[in-house]
Amino acid sequence: MRGTGGHLATAGFARFRALVEENLLRFLSPEVCPIPTPLRDAMEYALTSGGKRIRPVVLLSSGAAVGGQEKDLLPFACAVEYVHTYSLIHDDLPAMDDDDFRRGRPACHRAFGEAAAILAGDALLTEAFRVMGESPLAGSDPSKAVRASALLARAAGASGMAGGQMMDLRPAAGEKTMGPGGAQASAIEEIDLKKTAALLSAAAAMGGVLGGGTGEQVECLSRYGRALGLLFQITDDILDETGSFEEMGKAVAKDRERGKFTYPAALGMAAAAARAESLRRESLLALSPFGEEAETLRDIVRMVATRRS
Amino acid sequence: MRGTGGHLATAGFARFRALVEENLLRFLSPEVCPIPTPLRDAMEYALTSGGKRIRPVVLLSSGAAVGGQEKDLLPFACAVEYVHTYSLIHDDLPAMDDDDFRRGRPACHRAFGEAAAILAGDALLTEAFRVMGESPLAGSDPSKAVRASALLARAAGASGMAGGQMMDLRPAAGEKTMGPGGAQASAIEEIDLKKTAALLSAAAAMGGVLGGGTGEQVECLSRYGRALGLLFQITDDILDETGSFEEMGKAVAKDRERGKFTYPAALGMAAAAARAESLRRESLLALSPFGEEAETLRDIVRMVATRRS
Repeated sequence: MRGTGGHLATAGFARFRALVEENLLRFLSPEVCPIPTPLRDAMEYALTSGGKRIRPVVLLSSGAAVGGQEKDLLPFACAVEYVHTYSLIHDDLPAMDDDDFRRGRPACHRAFGEAAAILAGDALLTEAFRVMGESPLAGSDPSKAVRASALLARAAGASGMAGGQMMDLRPAAGEKTMGPGGAQASAIEEIDLKKTAALLSAAAAMGGVLGGGTGEQVECLSRYGRALGLLFQITDDILDETGSFEEMGKAVAKDRERGKFTYPAALGMAAAAARAESLRRESLLALSPFGEEAETLRDIVRMVATRRS
Repeated sequence: MRGTGGHLATAGFARFRALVEENLLRFLSPEVCPIPTPLRDAMEYALTSGGKRIRPVVLLSSGAAVGGQEKDLLPFACAVEYVHTYSLIHDDLPAMDDDDFRRGRPACHRAFGEAAAILAGDALLTEAFRVMGESPLAGSDPSKAVRASALLARAAGASGMAGGQMMDLRPAAGEKTMGPGGAQASAIEEIDLKKTAALLSAAAAMGGVLGGGTGEQVECLSRYGRALGLLFQITDDILDETGSFEEMGKAVAKDRERGKFTYPAALGMAAAAARAESLRRESLLALSPFGEEAETLRDIVRMVATRRS
């Protein structure tokens, strides 16, 4: 592990991302957690698929912004990535979004079968809470550890991510297909809030809690993560709409067929771009009480707002 | 909620079970956790299917044995039942054991569809950790809360229940179908340990930790739960073998067809009965440092050892 115990304030996105990559499998090593084959293979396959690691980086950057220590934050950052990875595995299942590919490779259930994929998702979700509960901070400062764990559980659970996925799979009749644009926008944003923004908001707030931030700082970080999450989802949807027909057209057509409506699909590209700009400002505004110690968090907003993939 | 704050030492199985039944849905009430339809329906359907509630009762009884308070233990007891319920929902899925019925009612995925069932399991698992992390004890004594949460996560995760389910679905070639009886017995018991005993052992240890037991007491309770879990599984398998053809024969035939071998199926009824008797003694022996404050725990052994359903 690199730089353990060091201050995080000056570290940037790339360093945090590398730190996550280097440590992501460590908390599942056979000495710590003996996992039978093929469950381990399926879990490690899904974890090493080259994601952007934006959620754990947001946690580490938020912790840095309030003066936290790497060694305290890292297990929690990896736990957040486990939860995100579990959600991708389960979302791809035939009974859910039925996607055969994820980031250019066969989806977990295509590579290992449905049973192993379901269990790999279940196990990653569970191990996330094990890693947090067995972390050094859980021994030295259990109050922070238990608060961070509760934030993650609430964000990922029935009123958060799992609930959002349910709503996305079964849109309430008429809610998104009829009614004026404003009602559609609000219904879409409710799903985006649960499905995407809840976990990013929790990651930011967890960093704040674990790093020893004040209540006000944690609240600002939480608002930052919420706006960033909505921005992330809307830029994702805009990319889907503007992407090449070969790569993206099928996904959009599939979403429409299922009754899924994204912000740009429902309200048009101009409205989506305006909403994205408003969310970009909102996320930066939430950081206004912070100085240069939050520069990585601001960099993340710029990256997400201007991303091309 | 009945008897909050009261001492548990004299309460028996029936009272603890009623306490769990009365409070199981409370931690998911709309004010605490707004859950979209049909996710809430699927979660509540699975939770109210009339199980024996043996895991949460073991937690409450273990807490009682070391002098714990009901109000501290109850959220954790319900969390353990959420985790057990999630495991049943996912085990019944077509890609897993493919069971259409559970306790005489349509399985969750038959009643609500596969997507809702997968998400209901995911959400119950996640909410278990939310309920523990937001419990009163997490505020007043976070060290105990975080230890109990970690015990549950380890028992349910990749090296525990989820790993056991993987091994049960994909028995290593030859491991259980060839070799002498002793090797078979040990392979079967390894699966039973992970699939069933880990969670019961964790429930007992969690009660000990949350109730303020000494390290030695927690260790005894953990051993008690482990033996009880193995006993529970072997009596289950014996009942399957001796049950009426109409009710049980199909399940056993299905298990055999899948390559699943239970203790009585692999080693015969006499060996299984002898092993059950040895586990019964082992579970009672683990309680020998305790006096009458552990009488409910002893009652549970008697109930499991002599059960007829």
